[in-house]
Amino acid sequence: MDFLELIQKRRSVRLYSDRPVAKEDLLKCLEAARLAPSGCNSQPWHFIVIDEPGLRKRVAGRIFSGLYAMNKFAQKAPVLIAVVSEKEKFLASFGGQIRDTRYCLLDIGIACEHLILQAQELGIGSCWMGWFDEEALKEELKIPKNKKIDIVISLGFSDEEKVVPRKRKALAEISSFNAYI
Amino acid sequence: MDFLELIQKRRSVRLYSDRPVAKEDLLKCLEAARLAPSGCNSQPWHFIVIDEPGLRKRVAGRIFSGLYAMNKFAQKAPVLIAVVSEKEKFLASFGGQIRDTRYCLLDIGIACEHLILQAQELGIGSCWMGWFDEEALKEELKIPKNKKIDIVISLGFSDEEKVVPRKRKALAEISSFNAYI
Repeated sequence: MDFLELIQKRRSVRLYSDRPVAKEDLLKCLEAARLAPSGCNSQPWHFIVIDEPGLRKRVAGRIFSGLYAMNKFAQKAPVLIAVVSEKEKFLASFGGQIRDTRYCLLDIGIACEHLILQAQELGIGSCWMGWFDEEALKEELKIPKNKKIDIVISLGFSDEEKVVPRKRKALAEISSFNAYI
Repeated sequence: MDFLELIQKRRSVRLYSDRPVAKEDLLKCLEAARLAPSGCNSQPWHFIVIDEPGLRKRVAGRIFSGLYAMNKFAQKAPVLIAVVSEKEKFLASFGGQIRDTRYCLLDIGIACEHLILQAQELGIGSCWMGWFDEEALKEELKIPKNKKIDIVISLGFSDEEKVVPRKRKALAEISSFNAYI
């Protein structure tokens, strides 16, 4: 499968089958994330894989309810991955302050997409989520309060029946040559 | 080439040959970026490909000099891509404010890595740069002052002779199962 095929196949999966995800596959996904580039090679990330059924059920029940019920579908995903944004190297953080950009978010975008595309290659569906009860998640996993968790990813085999066509802007709308048009 | 091989091959290339990059290849890279997922499907990006030699030389001469000379190597790259961070959809931006996260940066991380991995598959090297004179870039390309350009990517065929081993933290350092360790 070439790269364009792989990214064309990736979709946000919101309905999961009960089929568990093998630890070997999860490790391969983590390895893909590990190899991601980052500003000043900071690697400002920690991935917590939540696949122990009791814990996963408790965590998902809390972090995707109430105000966050929009992502309730993820309560049925066999695996959740909480991504802790870790400290960048001084130079990356200092440069980001001058440039008014939180580069570690870019880095996390890259690393998580590596993880997700690796999952896709293994036939495993996924969904990015930025909307969840972060405080409850920290409580459940005993993550210090000063840490930031920007992203949770759900993983599992898709049980969706139909593939909704992808909606994207046209190339001419998002790109131009030698001018800002 | 499988996905892990592709990401293992990707390196930051800082020495480029004179060989130009075909427009067809650039379009394929843009297409890979176009297909990237984003929060609420905002697609908050615009890619300006700078490959016209006169313009490229002038832009690169200005944005990678003085305080930004650290990235002077990019003056020799046959292509630069300036990535303008465009407006997110209201829901993405509002959710980001509540969650204290600029999700559009995550989105741009994803889309640019799609572009870079597609380039890699075509044998084209690249480098991420967050450190450049943004004001000069806006002036040269007549980009409105209120826009933000978080990233410039250089593209071209590598002229590097040796591949430096990749330094990454161990898997056990950046990940854990069912606990934050």
